[in-house]
Amino acid sequence: MLKRAASIQKVVRLSSGLTPQYTAEKYSVQRGDYGKLSSDDQNYLLSLVNGKGLVGEKELEGYNVDWMRIVRGKSELMLKPETTQQVSSILKFCHSRNIAVVPQGGNTGLVGGSVPVFDEVILNTSLMNKVEEIDPVSGVVVAQAGCILDQLNAELAPHKLMMPLDLGAKGSCQLGGNIATNAGGLRLLRYGSLRGNVLGMEAVLADGTVVDCMQTLRKDNTGYDIKQHFIGSEGTLGIITKASVLCAPLPSSVNLAYLSVNAFEDVRKLFSRAREDLGEILSAFEFIDNSCLVCLEDNLKLTPPVDPSPFAVVIETHGSNSSHDYDKLEAFLESVMSDGTVLDGCVAEDSMKATNLWGLRERMAESLMHDGYVYKYDVSIPLQKFYELVTVMRERLGEKVLRCVGYGHVGDSNLHINITTPAYSKEVDQLIEPFIFEWVSQVNGSVSAEHGIGFKKTQFLHLSKSPEAIAQMKLLKNAMDPKNILNPYKVLPLI
Amino acid sequence: MLKRAASIQKVVRLSSGLTPQYTAEKYSVQRGDYGKLSSDDQNYLLSLVNGKGLVGEKELEGYNVDWMRIVRGKSELMLKPETTQQVSSILKFCHSRNIAVVPQGGNTGLVGGSVPVFDEVILNTSLMNKVEEIDPVSGVVVAQAGCILDQLNAELAPHKLMMPLDLGAKGSCQLGGNIATNAGGLRLLRYGSLRGNVLGMEAVLADGTVVDCMQTLRKDNTGYDIKQHFIGSEGTLGIITKASVLCAPLPSSVNLAYLSVNAFEDVRKLFSRAREDLGEILSAFEFIDNSCLVCLEDNLKLTPPVDPSPFAVVIETHGSNSSHDYDKLEAFLESVMSDGTVLDGCVAEDSMKATNLWGLRERMAESLMHDGYVYKYDVSIPLQKFYELVTVMRERLGEKVLRCVGYGHVGDSNLHINITTPAYSKEVDQLIEPFIFEWVSQVNGSVSAEHGIGFKKTQFLHLSKSPEAIAQMKLLKNAMDPKNILNPYKVLPLI
Repeated sequence: MLKRAASIQKVVRLSSGLTPQYTAEKYSVQRGDYGKLSSDDQNYLLSLVNGKGLVGEKELEGYNVDWMRIVRGKSELMLKPETTQQVSSILKFCHSRNIAVVPQGGNTGLVGGSVPVFDEVILNTSLMNKVEEIDPVSGVVVAQAGCILDQLNAELAPHKLMMPLDLGAKGSCQLGGNIATNAGGLRLLRYGSLRGNVLGMEAVLADGTVVDCMQTLRKDNTGYDIKQHFIGSEGTLGIITKASVLCAPLPSSVNLAYLSVNAFEDVRKLFSRAREDLGEILSAFEFIDNSCLVCLEDNLKLTPPVDPSPFAVVIETHGSNSSHDYDKLEAFLESVMSDGTVLDGCVAEDSMKATNLWGLRERMAESLMHDGYVYKYDVSIPLQKFYELVTVMRERLGEKVLRCVGYGHVGDSNLHINITTPAYSKEVDQLIEPFIFEWVSQVNGSVSAEHGIGFKKTQFLHLSKSPEAIAQMKLLKNAMDPKNILNPYKVLPLI
Repeated sequence: MLKRAASIQKVVRLSSGLTPQYTAEKYSVQRGDYGKLSSDDQNYLLSLVNGKGLVGEKELEGYNVDWMRIVRGKSELMLKPETTQQVSSILKFCHSRNIAVVPQGGNTGLVGGSVPVFDEVILNTSLMNKVEEIDPVSGVVVAQAGCILDQLNAELAPHKLMMPLDLGAKGSCQLGGNIATNAGGLRLLRYGSLRGNVLGMEAVLADGTVVDCMQTLRKDNTGYDIKQHFIGSEGTLGIITKASVLCAPLPSSVNLAYLSVNAFEDVRKLFSRAREDLGEILSAFEFIDNSCLVCLEDNLKLTPPVDPSPFAVVIETHGSNSSHDYDKLEAFLESVMSDGTVLDGCVAEDSMKATNLWGLRERMAESLMHDGYVYKYDVSIPLQKFYELVTVMRERLGEKVLRCVGYGHVGDSNLHINITTPAYSKEVDQLIEPFIFEWVSQVNGSVSAEHGIGFKKTQFLHLSKSPEAIAQMKLLKNAMDPKNILNPYKVLPLI
């Protein structure tokens, strides 16, 4: 594969300049019966946000196209409100005129959920980026939806706190988008899901009503937990404007180990052993396969710290006592190396080395994009069957693709399987889908572990949700947004 | 206070034999316009569960009255289905005939949510008590709703797992009821809320439709998380029949310390210090005030292990390495005793002693009942104002009550404040409510931290929820149960 590097680099340069096809054409979508904006409407909406927005499809290129450059809408108006009241006014107007709206945060979503399909008004939350309150005693942060994850961590660090989630897009992704997607990421294993950590929320409904569920308490069993509606609903039930989140204590001791393993069966064993030996300090257990390592070297010139092996595992610990943590890690490593579960490995000796090790795992998505076109899948699969999908897909696709790689969060049974070609190929697409989702469904997996349904997976929802559950989803959507103006064509199947 | 013990004991024996007044009369509730059961209907419904139920108000005494003996319904039919299909058939029939139904688990609820108000059919889940699957690798248990918490822990222990929640009622409370109440308990601080730990669910809707949201994966972002509707909705949106829960690893090392403290300000300081020094092994941080200690001695002859003090704190650690844990605990104790934060203390040397120490905390509710009548409140209050409420209530009630005590989960800002009188007194009741809830609301607390709203707190819901959030609750209830046959008179305000 190393030999292919030069030509792939060329493809990248070409493809990154290409404008993707319109979503509506590529996927043959019919526009809903929504109102259209006159230039007076545009001016009125812009006036609601003191002119903070953009008009014209060309000007909106960066807002109409997703980060992966796979979907493309044709919106002509993007608004950047600064207050909840402005969000409310925008929605009130759009609701009265039956105009569709797509909420957008950092636009780092991977399933086409954060860009328009047609001419939906883009409501971008970037300017709602105030951290309103940090309480070091309770560990709760109150922040507006547009706060970037890295920014939050930077403001929390002096209080010895950190956000309970961490993901590759942390430099761009926003709190509101994280919550709307119920983002998982690298440390869910240790710090749990956003459903447990979001304590309070403010959101605006389709008709402009502001729903105040703000709260900073860990326990509050007063009636239905309405804020749960908005968590993971990808902006289709309301627009999150503010949230309070229970943070995790910033660990005083962090260790990172990179281990080479011979077979996926050993990765599984290693995970069980890590849970036993590292116990409460285990904060992440990630794996990347050898095809990933080759890709990192081909496209980003990144090399692993030890000789390549079929699988590499990155284990992280977070704790409060460095000597205890080191003892635990040392005993664990000695045991798994002496019995042959681990072939080779290294431990980061300083934070620079740790950043480099994490880089191998965190820059995988970026690295793959250099190949040209990426078919990206994010599935949950019970560990017994976890890696089998990569093998199955490799056999199925053979020489028709550049790469088929597997990496992800073993600790959460969450596999990222990515397939690349120099440019989009309908043939490859049809070989992958729906096959891959049906395979996942058959082993009781989830067709979307953490990325969500967005635009791209609506037709596969039924493979992970029962008809009765989908009926309940529709019931909720119809009750909360009967005109279906909030992020249409997303989450629920079109028909 | 010790002198009063004899007379109080007498009151107990009297009051526990008393049949409480009908809820409908005590609180002047109007019966909804529901159908009434003929004896043919009763026989038909009994036939659906192979005769497993009871007929007649007298026979249903234990099902019509709550554990606290504060509310009392007048149901004449109690059914014990064994399968989801039976639950579905019962609801289908009741729905078609507009007959109200109250779901009931272990009937350990403290807000009158699990007993009927009028003649609702009681659907008791006790016989749905099968543990269907335990996966030691993923740590997930799949169990029917009627499994008792202690039973689950007993079946999980051989797999080195335990349930992620623990509460005083664990010998009787059932999984379905725990989830329907979003039960919190003693170790939420460490293991998080049920919203994060319930991975899958099966529930039956008002019309008998079975909604299958079963899933055993930690990450599953496929559309709206419908199972969240049922968590914390206290049986008003559907009846939970099965769930999969992410368990916690059974800790190989458990420590328990009992510490005497002079002022609540020191309890707060101690909590901050415990979080810093014990870090990831801290699993519970509970407090009881001196009035609690007196009550335990008066009513249960339980004495604290060290001399009484204004406040006692019970700290628990769960870890994977006993020598590391002991080191951390020892360093922490030395530091807080040498600087005077802690007056005196002891550490349980064996599991028997630990059980005795926990007994002091866990038997508080039982101990108070011996006084006669208990006015029970479960609120969340930011730690700055936490104990002030107890002082305020003591001043307000003076000699009109036997005791006013405070205990609870400092780690979750969750205060249990309990007031006792020999028998129910309307005067005392009116001095307490709504004052106590208004006070809590003014300090941004929650009027129900973990007990729920049930029947008893519906009129105070607005003190912790905004009008817009209550409107969304009603919207959801109307969409999911338009005939309002599921657990009526509960959660939502009657008007």
